[in-house]
Amino acid sequence: MKFKSPPVNSLSLEFLTEFSIGLEKLENNRACRGVIITSAVPKIFSSGLDITEMCGKSVEHYGEFWRAVQEMWLRLYGSNMVTVAAVNGSSPAGGCLIALSCDYRIMAENPKFSIGLNEAQLGIVAPFWFKDTFVNVVGHRIAERSLQLGSLHPAPEAQRLGLVDELVPEEKLMEKAAAVMAQWLALPDHARQLTKTMMRKAVLDRLVAHREEDIKNFITFVSKESIQKSLRMYMEMLKKRKS
Amino acid sequence: MKFKSPPVNSLSLEFLTEFSIGLEKLENNRACRGVIITSAVPKIFSSGLDITEMCGKSVEHYGEFWRAVQEMWLRLYGSNMVTVAAVNGSSPAGGCLIALSCDYRIMAENPKFSIGLNEAQLGIVAPFWFKDTFVNVVGHRIAERSLQLGSLHPAPEAQRLGLVDELVPEEKLMEKAAAVMAQWLALPDHARQLTKTMMRKAVLDRLVAHREEDIKNFITFVSKESIQKSLRMYMEMLKKRKS
Amino acid sequence: MKFKSPPVNSLSLEFLTEFSIGLEKLENNRACRGVIITSAVPKIFSSGLDITEMCGKSVEHYGEFWRAVQEMWLRLYGSNMVTVAAVNGSSPAGGCLIALSCDYRIMAENPKFSIGLNEAQLGIVAPFWFKDTFVNVVGHRIAERSLQLGSLHPAPEAQRLGLVDELVPEEKLMEKAAAVMAQWLALPDHARQLTKTMMRKAVLDRLVAHREEDIKNFITFVSKESIQKSLRMYMEMLKKRKS
Repeated sequence: MKFKSPPVNSLSLEFLTEFSIGLEKLENNRACRGVIITSAVPKIFSSGLDITEMCGKSVEHYGEFWRAVQEMWLRLYGSNMVTVAAVNGSSPAGGCLIALSCDYRIMAENPKFSIGLNEAQLGIVAPFWFKDTFVNVVGHRIAERSLQLGSLHPAPEAQRLGLVDELVPEEKLMEKAAAVMAQWLALPDHARQLTKTMMRKAVLDRLVAHREEDIKNFITFVSKESIQKSLRMYMEMLKKRKS
Repeated sequence: MKFKSPPVNSLSLEFLTEFSIGLEKLENNRACRGVIITSAVPKIFSSGLDITEMCGKSVEHYGEFWRAVQEMWLRLYGSNMVTVAAVNGSSPAGGCLIALSCDYRIMAENPKFSIGLNEAQLGIVAPFWFKDTFVNVVGHRIAERSLQLGSLHPAPEAQRLGLVDELVPEEKLMEKAAAVMAQWLALPDHARQLTKTMMRKAVLDRLVAHREEDIKNFITFVSKESIQKSLRMYMEMLKKRKS
Repeated sequence: MKFKSPPVNSLSLEFLTEFSIGLEKLENNRACRGVIITSAVPKIFSSGLDITEMCGKSVEHYGEFWRAVQEMWLRLYGSNMVTVAAVNGSSPAGGCLIALSCDYRIMAENPKFSIGLNEAQLGIVAPFWFKDTFVNVVGHRIAERSLQLGSLHPAPEAQRLGLVDELVPEEKLMEKAAAVMAQWLALPDHARQLTKTMMRKAVLDRLVAHREEDIKNFITFVSKESIQKSLRMYMEMLKKRKS
C-alpha cells in the first residue's frame, strides 16, 4: 500500500475513508496475508491528521472526521494481516500513529526524517488511544516525556527509543520490508493472529467502549476558540514556511 | 532443584505433579528460604510442555494436564522463596515459562542455547498468563514481537532483550547462582516476600479468577482436528530430527 | 525549591507539611509554571521518611504522618507545573520517591551518590503507590528486582536503569536543570498539562480511591512490635555510623 496524496499525505476525511476501505478489502481477501505501508511522496511518510478538517468546520464535520480517524486505527491496529511500516520520510502525529499500529517499523536511515506524536507542540493533546498505542511500543517513561514535549525524534533517536525497530539506507527500505514480511508470513496465520489479538485486545476494547465519548470530547475540544486559534496560527506558519 | 527427566526434561503430567509437590514441600519447610532451579540433562534446561500429553488423549486427560500446568506456575510465580533459574541449556515454551517465573535468571553463555515462548511456531498460542509473565519481564513491545514470531532467542540475544539477567560461562553457572542466592537471602524475608507479592499479585489473581475458563479454552483448542494435526506433524519432525 | 533541613533533609511531618503548602502556593501562583527541586544540604538530596516519626509514637501520630506523606505525593506527582529534580546528593526511599514524581531527573555524576527505594533493606515494604510511580519510570522488571533487593543504585547505574534521565558534573547541575526547564516551558501549558494528567491519572486515582485503607495498613504495619524493633535497630546503626 502506497500513500499518494501530495503534497504531504495528510490524513483528510477522504484519505482516511479510502484507507479504511482499502484495509477492509485486503482483510477480506484470503489471498492477502500481509501489507507493507509506505509513501509515494518523497521525504514524507504522512504528515498526520489534516488540520483543515479541524478548522472552521461544523460540529457534524468534526464528528464525522474523528469517527474516520478511529475507524482507520481500529482496522489497522486490529488487523489480522501482518502489517509492516516502511517509513520513507517524516512521520509526525497521525503519521506516527499509523507506523506505531503496524507489527514492525523500518525507517530510512536519514537523520532529516523524524517521527513522533508532536500534538503538544500544536497546543492539542493526543487522545488516550494514541497514548496507549505509544506506551505499548516504547513503555510508559519514554511515552510520558515524548508526549509532554511533543517530540519529533530524528530516525537514529527513534530507533534508540524503540519507536522504530530498524533503520536501513533509503534505497534498501522496500527490499528489507519484503524480507521482514516473508519472515512474519512464515508463521502459521491462525496462531499468529490469535497471539496478536491477545496482545492488542485490551487497548482496542478501550476505544470501542468509549468511542462515542471520545468523539464528543474531540468535538468539544476542537470547537474551543483557543484551539481554533492555535490551529489557525499553525496553518499560517506552515504556509509561510512553504513560500 | 535439578530437573532430571531425560531425554529433554519435557513437562509431562507426572513431571509437573512432582515439581509442584516438591515446591510445596520446600515452601512449607521453614529452613528453606530459596531454591535454585537447573537441569541435570546436558544441553537442555527443559523442552517445555510434553506434547504427547496433548495429542490423541481424552478430554479429561487434557483438563487434568492443563490444571497441573497452572498449578506449577501458580506455585512457582507466587513462591515466597527466592527462586533463581540457572539455565544450563535450551529452554523453549514451558521451559522458558519456568525461567521467567523465577526471581532471577542466569544463563550459560553458549549461543547454541536458546530460550523463548515459541508456541506460535507450533501453530498454538501461549495462554494469557504465559504472556503476562513474559510482559512483566521484557515489556509489551518485545513480548508482542517475540510471541507473534514464536522466537527462540540465542543466549546473547536473550540477555540483550532482558529475557535473562546475566550470562556466565557454563562451568561457573552454579557458583554464580549461589552468589546471587546469597545476595537475595541477605534481605529480611518478610519485607522481600510482601514486595514480591505486591509486584506479582495482579497477574497471579488473573489466572486464579479465570482458571476453569482457561482449562475449558485449552481443551476446546487442543481438541480441534487442525491443532491435533499440527502437533502430530511437529512430533514426527522431532522424531526424524532425532534419527 | 531548595530542601534545607540539616543534617539529611529527612521527611518529618513538619517538613512534609511545609513542602505540600509550598507546592500548593506555587501551583496557585499563575506566574509560576515550573519548579526545580534540589537540596541545600551537601551530599544529600533527601534521606527519605523520618524514621523517628514512625517509632514509638501514637497510632494517631502514625495516621497523621502517613496522610502527610500521601498529600505530598499527590501534589507533586499530580502537579500542573513542570517539575525537575536536580538530585545533588544521595536519595534513598522517600527521597527517591520525590525525584521519581518529577517530570525529569538530573543527577550529579558522582558514583558516591546513590538513589533507590531501599525500604526492603529496613525490613519494611514500599507502599503500592511508591511501586506504581517506580514502575512508570523504569518498567516492571527493573522495579521488581530493585524493590525486592531494596537496592540503592550509584548514579551511573541509576542512569543505565532509567531511574534518572541524565548525569552532569555537580557544578553544572543547576545550569542544566534551568536549561531543561526552559525546554519544557517552551510548550503550551494547557496541552502539556492535559498530557501529563492523561499519563498519571490512573496511578493517582488508585491512591485517592484507597487512601484511608492505605493509612490503616500503614498504622497496622508500623505498630507491629517486629517492625518497631527493626526500625529501632536501624536508627541505632545510623547513630553509631555517625559517631
